[in-house]
Amino acid sequence: MSDITIRLIAPSGYPYDPAAMTRGVARLREAGCVVDGLDVLQRTEQRFSGTDAERVADINALATMGTLPDIALVTRGGYGASRLLPHLDYDALRERLADASTLLVGHSDFTALQLALYAKTGLYTFSGPLLADLGAESCSEFTWQHFWDTLTSPASTAAWPATTTNEIDVQGPLWGGNLAVLCSLLGTPYFPQIEGGILFVEDVGEPPFRIERWLYQLHLSGVLGRQRALVLGDFSHCQPSARDNGYDLAAAFAQIRAVAGIPVVGGMPHGHGEQQLTLPFSAPARLRVAGGRAQLDFSGYPHLNRPAPASAVENP
Amino acid sequence: MSDITIRLIAPSGYPYDPAAMTRGVARLREAGCVVDGLDVLQRTEQRFSGTDAERVADINALATMGTLPDIALVTRGGYGASRLLPHLDYDALRERLADASTLLVGHSDFTALQLALYAKTGLYTFSGPLLADLGAESCSEFTWQHFWDTLTSPASTAAWPATTTNEIDVQGPLWGGNLAVLCSLLGTPYFPQIEGGILFVEDVGEPPFRIERWLYQLHLSGVLGRQRALVLGDFSHCQPSARDNGYDLAAAFAQIRAVAGIPVVGGMPHGHGEQQLTLPFSAPARLRVAGGRAQLDFSGYPHLNRPAPASAVENP
Repeated sequence: MSDITIRLIAPSGYPYDPAAMTRGVARLREAGCVVDGLDVLQRTEQRFSGTDAERVADINALATMGTLPDIALVTRGGYGASRLLPHLDYDALRERLADASTLLVGHSDFTALQLALYAKTGLYTFSGPLLADLGAESCSEFTWQHFWDTLTSPASTAAWPATTTNEIDVQGPLWGGNLAVLCSLLGTPYFPQIEGGILFVEDVGEPPFRIERWLYQLHLSGVLGRQRALVLGDFSHCQPSARDNGYDLAAAFAQIRAVAGIPVVGGMPHGHGEQQLTLPFSAPARLRVAGGRAQLDFSGYPHLNRPAPASAVENP
Repeated sequence: MSDITIRLIAPSGYPYDPAAMTRGVARLREAGCVVDGLDVLQRTEQRFSGTDAERVADINALATMGTLPDIALVTRGGYGASRLLPHLDYDALRERLADASTLLVGHSDFTALQLALYAKTGLYTFSGPLLADLGAESCSEFTWQHFWDTLTSPASTAAWPATTTNEIDVQGPLWGGNLAVLCSLLGTPYFPQIEGGILFVEDVGEPPFRIERWLYQLHLSGVLGRQRALVLGDFSHCQPSARDNGYDLAAAFAQIRAVAGIPVVGGMPHGHGEQQLTLPFSAPARLRVAGGRAQLDFSGYPHLNRPAPASAVENP
């Protein structure tokens, strides 16, 4: 038994695929984790995983509960975190969590909470798999392994075939997330002011013109120009339509490369595809690209001083 | 012959329905207008109506051409205006157009240019039909009439059945446009700082959660709270999906009404539906709601000192 404790939190959509949730919980328990907070899986309010008050309480409870979990794991994405941002108890969360090692992990709509928590408290969070991902019918061994590697080590790394031939070696805080959600906070007090960073973005099911429009918003707002590099993760199911007349995702990215004024590195295995990395939001990072290979190293983030669960992904 | 001169400009998508363009030009000529700039209808570059340089030149030409047209009419929407914003010659446009009565008219993606031109130059523009709308197979008599009423009068009005029972009487600058495009400029220097305004928004083909996420962005950024009222235009084809579990556009709007802190008035016949108003961006306006009826009056905007064309919409 690793005895790692995991508490589920559900800030966004209700679990429309309960079987994935059940599988996710079973896999984590099989690996020796203690999983609680399962009541959130029963909550449904319209398309949300509970009322706004219930979903806010999941997060604010981390400031007041007796014993903190090792990991607070987000059940799934969707939409709904934006509604919660004015109601989080940022001061209490900072006070309680700043020196704790509770690791908040999720992605997709969770990006909104990551941005807001960082902007308002400076707290670390992790862009990584959701319970729905860990419970996917075929959960990727890569995703599972990177999740535990990052969360149980003071430093971690990711490497992938690079889509640029330029040599790059930059350092800065690592941040980013879902592109649509990230841009939905631009102009609000929940969008963090991060300079000299390594910004990663990903999205799913969006036509190329929307991807470009969001990247343009980051460009026109000056956010892109203040970073050391832009890293493109997965853009799954982002197909052009017949009327796009040959304009596709490659054309959108070519335009962004032409105007961004910073290196743009594609192909990071992270997003809504099968593979996900677990990336600490705001941790110091170094990105190197050479010889057709990209390597991202990061360290200095809070982690669990426990061995990773021995067992790998298995169908329970 | 009214002898009103109209110049076509094409800042966004290429004309995938050339017949609509041809019909629009024919209807305007039938009404006695002189239409030029038809070469823009021949331009296609990927999904765009020409290269970025060509599309920028359409706008910047208004600063340098010998004789200005009475109306600069946008051909259609789509996407692509964002790319042009850093390349407009704002100073020259302000100098040439501030005291001229050239009326720039369009909507949809043109919203980006309206916001940028107002933010950078204070110039008036008009949210109104595109050439594609005036050339629609069955062009609305209402749209045609309101277009000419607004453009040839120092004051105009619009009225519709109100969706709120609250009595409202507010005054402020009228502004707004397509919700997605409006929010795509939040956080950039092209988003105008307008206080105490009457803000109208519309959209097409977006699921309710996106509409809510954009309205939340306006809320969380403080933009909504600084206005006197929010007016909801058409939200055409904005249907929920099966997984939305009963959450629909009405639920999204109910949430916004609950948090906006300002009156929210629905049902304005403007957007991507069959009917469009022609609304002067930034003109002084008064919005009154009483007895189940909303009325929007606006005045003090540049207009044509010419009689409106006598002929109504006819299939040429």
